[in-house]
Amino acid sequence: MKIEGKEYRTIWFENNVVKIIDQTKLPHQFIIKDLKTVKDAINAIKVMEVRGAPLIGGTAAYGIALAVQENNDPEFIKKSAEELIQSRPTAINLKWAVDRMMNKLSGINSDQILDIALKEAKEICDEDEKFCENIGINGLKIIEEIYNKTKKKVNILTHCNAGWLATVDHGTALSPIFKLVDEGFDVHVWVDETRPRNQGLSLTAWELNQYKIKHTVITDNAGGLLMKEGLVDFVIVGADRIALDGQVCNKIGTYLKAVVAKENSIPFYVAAPTSTIDINFFGETRNFEIECRDPSEIMTMKGEDKLGNIIEVNLGNSPAYNPAFDVTPPMYVSKFICEKGVFDTDKIRDII
Amino acid sequence: MKIEGKEYRTIWFENNVVKIIDQTKLPHQFIIKDLKTVKDAINAIKVMEVRGAPLIGGTAAYGIALAVQENNDPEFIKKSAEELIQSRPTAINLKWAVDRMMNKLSGINSDQILDIALKEAKEICDEDEKFCENIGINGLKIIEEIYNKTKKKVNILTHCNAGWLATVDHGTALSPIFKLVDEGFDVHVWVDETRPRNQGLSLTAWELNQYKIKHTVITDNAGGLLMKEGLVDFVIVGADRIALDGQVCNKIGTYLKAVVAKENSIPFYVAAPTSTIDINFFGETRNFEIECRDPSEIMTMKGEDKLGNIIEVNLGNSPAYNPAFDVTPPMYVSKFICEKGVFDTDKIRDII
Repeated sequence: MKIEGKEYRTIWFENNVVKIIDQTKLPHQFIIKDLKTVKDAINAIKVMEVRGAPLIGGTAAYGIALAVQENNDPEFIKKSAEELIQSRPTAINLKWAVDRMMNKLSGINSDQILDIALKEAKEICDEDEKFCENIGINGLKIIEEIYNKTKKKVNILTHCNAGWLATVDHGTALSPIFKLVDEGFDVHVWVDETRPRNQGLSLTAWELNQYKIKHTVITDNAGGLLMKEGLVDFVIVGADRIALDGQVCNKIGTYLKAVVAKENSIPFYVAAPTSTIDINFFGETRNFEIECRDPSEIMTMKGEDKLGNIIEVNLGNSPAYNPAFDVTPPMYVSKFICEKGVFDTDKIRDII
Repeated sequence: MKIEGKEYRTIWFENNVVKIIDQTKLPHQFIIKDLKTVKDAINAIKVMEVRGAPLIGGTAAYGIALAVQENNDPEFIKKSAEELIQSRPTAINLKWAVDRMMNKLSGINSDQILDIALKEAKEICDEDEKFCENIGINGLKIIEEIYNKTKKKVNILTHCNAGWLATVDHGTALSPIFKLVDEGFDVHVWVDETRPRNQGLSLTAWELNQYKIKHTVITDNAGGLLMKEGLVDFVIVGADRIALDGQVCNKIGTYLKAVVAKENSIPFYVAAPTSTIDINFFGETRNFEIECRDPSEIMTMKGEDKLGNIIEVNLGNSPAYNPAFDVTPPMYVSKFICEKGVFDTDKIRDII
């Protein structure tokens, strides 16, 4: 993705440190931050300096490499891996990336281990970039079909941020949208602000603006009215974990939009790499933990004051409950778009 | 409603001024504000120092009385009435109250006019108080039925503020909840924060806290997960305008909750006085204006800084769209609770 004309990924290794874009500072400030230790990587995931299931995976992979760089004692690396997996509970890509790194390093006890770790982390990131680009190419095909019916501006609703910033590059849900715009389609995106952390308002809108794509921020409450009034051609979101039976765990609020999209006969697409599929999550019962984050995320808000300082204001002192994800049953999901193609949600089991 | 042990209404006339509680300052500060002129009343409605369909009606009634007090020239009063009606477009109670005041004052051109105006405004408010109390009594009956089935704590979800602060006293959606608690039921309320203006977080949570009712603030995104997981026994909301065919115009986001409540077989109740029914709104097509408020309501947030000052922070600079209401078709509304009783939504036409 180009930011002010310069090509970036969301994560890379340079001069013995891992570089990330601190996403807690956007849209106000674009700051590159150094992660020097595995603790830094764990913290970056916890406080959401990096977020988005695929990027959490990439950061965890580089986290293992940073652990190796600090201390290549197998016990230290193993303990670091466990801590990384526990840094956020819901996105399956995190465990997937850590397991892959640990398998690669298993039994290696030589001077080569750091090089191997760094190479594998980069490969995970390279793969994610390629997969996300393919999601864009595959998603483009079905969206072209919608466009070819109407020949009008395509109005898209998205929730949270499943763009470039949620991955290594290209994004998941936004990847087909970037492709649509590259192909010259007239596109407009409704951006759910996505409370409590405002990833839509802060990250998706910022990304779309960088790519010069027409967009409008709305409250999470407004999507129902827009769908009912015919102002949404399709909804597209990412995913944090997908069950074998097609249930989709994604940012809290996704389920509300999916049900109402179906009620209004509007296609609802989920775009994610196959690393998001959890073979241990069969559906029906959750089988995994839905992360509940600190209630202060609801009761405070960060923003820029009149002097341009980023400060936090308090909104009230009530008890609050802050589940970060919900689960959408497959009956509400029209298609699943991944790097391997476009699938019906009852075919998830056949993809992997 | 008792606040810190003292009985209050949300609006009253005293020493030649109309007194209101400035709702833009809650929950941080409890401030009584004077409205001295009809312009003050119009401004209070516009900037939402008072809000909630019934209280907007009460404020408009007293606004006419203030106009009469300023200048009892019929032309001035008529012009004031028109400006009042235009101060916010969606809540039908506003026009209803202004029309009732103007009918009462029609042809009166004497020293008595101010007394008559003040008496009628007070009567509108007294009636609202009585109607809202009756809504509580009527709502209690159907909620008791739910409780008698489970004999467990009742979990209620509400959206926006349809409490005491939205009316003269008692509230609409919250009125049965206050009654439930008075009757000794074990009640817990999930409070949608209700972006963009956070009436749930700022007003409903504050009211419930004053009444010592257990409650938890959630993001507008979280209600779907809670309903799906069986953590909501029923949903209850107010209304800003109700069509003769039972369509309910209410705070943006109501429609999302109503559709998902039905999908999960959870009762969805609408509580409002019959003054909220618009005989010119038949349904299907809107037939009235859905207010779109300033996008800055989405892109900024007011809160308390570390020094206790209420300040506004900027969240971003994207284009935004801010419709304040949506319309829920009657198929999603289980019952309509008003001062006259509890009705099926296909019976609205028969009530008035």
